[in-house]
Amino acid sequence: MMKFIPMVAAALTLTASAQAQEPGAAPSPNQIVASASADEWITISAEDLLVMMLAPDRDGNPREVVLQLMPAPFSQGWVENIRLFARSGWYDNISVNRVQDNYVVQWGDPNYDNPETEGKAKPLPEGLRVMEEADYTTTTVDVTLIHNGMELTEDNRVQFAAMDWSQTEDPDFHNVSPDVRTTQTTHTFAGWHQRDSYSQWVEFFQSWPVSSEGETGDAPWWPIHCYGMVGVGRGYSPDTGSGAELYTVIGHAPRHLDRNIALVGRVIEGMEHLSSLPRGKGDLGFYTDPSRRTAIQTVRVASDLPQAEQPQFEFLSTESETFAQYAEARANRRDPFFIVPAGGADICNIPVPVRRTATQ
Amino acid sequence: MMKFIPMVAAALTLTASAQAQEPGAAPSPNQIVASASADEWITISAEDLLVMMLAPDRDGNPREVVLQLMPAPFSQGWVENIRLFARSGWYDNISVNRVQDNYVVQWGDPNYDNPETEGKAKPLPEGLRVMEEADYTTTTVDVTLIHNGMELTEDNRVQFAAMDWSQTEDPDFHNVSPDVRTTQTTHTFAGWHQRDSYSQWVEFFQSWPVSSEGETGDAPWWPIHCYGMVGVGRGYSPDTGSGAELYTVIGHAPRHLDRNIALVGRVIEGMEHLSSLPRGKGDLGFYTDPSRRTAIQTVRVASDLPQAEQPQFEFLSTESETFAQYAEARANRRDPFFIVPAGGADICNIPVPVRRTATQ
Repeated sequence: MMKFIPMVAAALTLTASAQAQEPGAAPSPNQIVASASADEWITISAEDLLVMMLAPDRDGNPREVVLQLMPAPFSQGWVENIRLFARSGWYDNISVNRVQDNYVVQWGDPNYDNPETEGKAKPLPEGLRVMEEADYTTTTVDVTLIHNGMELTEDNRVQFAAMDWSQTEDPDFHNVSPDVRTTQTTHTFAGWHQRDSYSQWVEFFQSWPVSSEGETGDAPWWPIHCYGMVGVGRGYSPDTGSGAELYTVIGHAPRHLDRNIALVGRVIEGMEHLSSLPRGKGDLGFYTDPSRRTAIQTVRVASDLPQAEQPQFEFLSTESETFAQYAEARANRRDPFFIVPAGGADICNIPVPVRRTATQ
Repeated sequence: MMKFIPMVAAALTLTASAQAQEPGAAPSPNQIVASASADEWITISAEDLLVMMLAPDRDGNPREVVLQLMPAPFSQGWVENIRLFARSGWYDNISVNRVQDNYVVQWGDPNYDNPETEGKAKPLPEGLRVMEEADYTTTTVDVTLIHNGMELTEDNRVQFAAMDWSQTEDPDFHNVSPDVRTTQTTHTFAGWHQRDSYSQWVEFFQSWPVSSEGETGDAPWWPIHCYGMVGVGRGYSPDTGSGAELYTVIGHAPRHLDRNIALVGRVIEGMEHLSSLPRGKGDLGFYTDPSRRTAIQTVRVASDLPQAEQPQFEFLSTESETFAQYAEARANRRDPFFIVPAGGADICNIPVPVRRTATQ
């Protein structure tokens, strides 16, 4: 009886660091990830990292949140806007204004449409792009492909290694050199995929959960609202939002928002500083008492920070063999606590491993 | 531009109270629920409600959490234990010891297996049942059925109204009076059902999300780990836990725990007091600093409270016509914010409407 809690603890682990594996026991998903080789990890560009400093908590502890921005071909107009907001200092001294349980945390300028303070609303920076609703999905992926192990770019090297080129329908694709091909493709992304309650085809694109229509994984594709994903608040259609208002998911994946709002990234560190904020008591979780808002002091693109302060992160390639084993183990837990493997896993229950490597 | 935030707000609503519906606009899920008739709501027995008082927050605000216990035929041995723990006062002065982001909040006696304080661990009450792993699922439902509108019991009146009796395989069932039938049935539960990433058949049983094996919805059945569901911590197999350690889900549904651990209820009010607690910094989200634990002052079965203090709740019958409309609207949002209906909904994204009626 005295051993009760730690066993429960071991029982419920999902995110703890890999623990010593008992001889003969099946590895946990975390132990599988810990066994990945160095070349299965892909460095995230500092240009794709945002460092958001919240005001310290009531005990004076710092609260840093790191976001990763989404790569092409998804949502790039909004992503460019977000870098512009950050680089112009527009995000500095805004605040978290809304926390709705099992839904979203949302931040922005609290003075917009506030009858008492709207005169203080910040003017938007110049040069923002206005995106269309069609851009919530994408039908064309510009990719540089590789063949026979020849590496064309560092970024997509692993992504397309497992691609079944024979299925590519683009006739131009087959007319270029088999060793070096650059094309627009409607081919499905390679690797793990499945159907779920929302779609016949969900999969990972360069570590991002994406969905498509139909049963074959063909275009259009769009990103999925999993826990921790970051999106762009907007008004009623046809407004698509600029990036001035952002939110992140703090509950069960609200997939009904997919294709209805732009997803632009995800929180990769410090999520607990957002998810544990007090829920707002107003409609939709807005704070009725302005003093409950959490101040956002600064938001910086990591590449703009002094070299020594730039955080470094990498993700496990979703095309790697280790990721395939990890996804399988998430669907069929065989490590010692489990009795009955589930036989499946929701894509949002296969969080892509991301780790901080070092601050230079 | 000045209208930005409130439009965003309206955009992202899920749980706000029903708002005025624009003429011609499709109703939101909440508006559909608001239109339910009184007889579609089912009162929750005070015997199935637990009132858990946490210590006040740092500003002195009270924190009350209300849990609903699961009905037969699911997990009843643990549910009986939980009433025994509550009635013996065993839960008084325990604490929340673990908060792991996107996973669980767990509470119990912090002195178990604590080298510094284990001598202070509470002795368990006498009379606890020891459950078997087979009880994580159920193969037989004892139900009292009705026919031609004749009401046999208040609790299952609506549940079985929509049942297609012609499909019942039990031959004895067809030999009793058509007006009054009491039987053990292997029949599937009636109403909304679908397949998902984990199962060919998920549905609602008297408002609880449940799953089954195979493609026909036949036994065995088991409850599903959706957001806010409450389960029983345990050690390694064959331990099944007593109910001394409980947890609730604060993230994306961890369905891999289904059939591996007993689910016994759900949080129906005050969830934000648990989900917003600071995350623990130790392995698995345990607090390394005991002062971070949140004290649980009392846990009472509502029926034991003075009549005037008993909270009253009801849920929308999952067999009702309004629930069917609500579930369909959750899967296909057509209210003004939405552009593209999802075409489906995860069962954990169809939270069963529960409302407080009054404190007597």
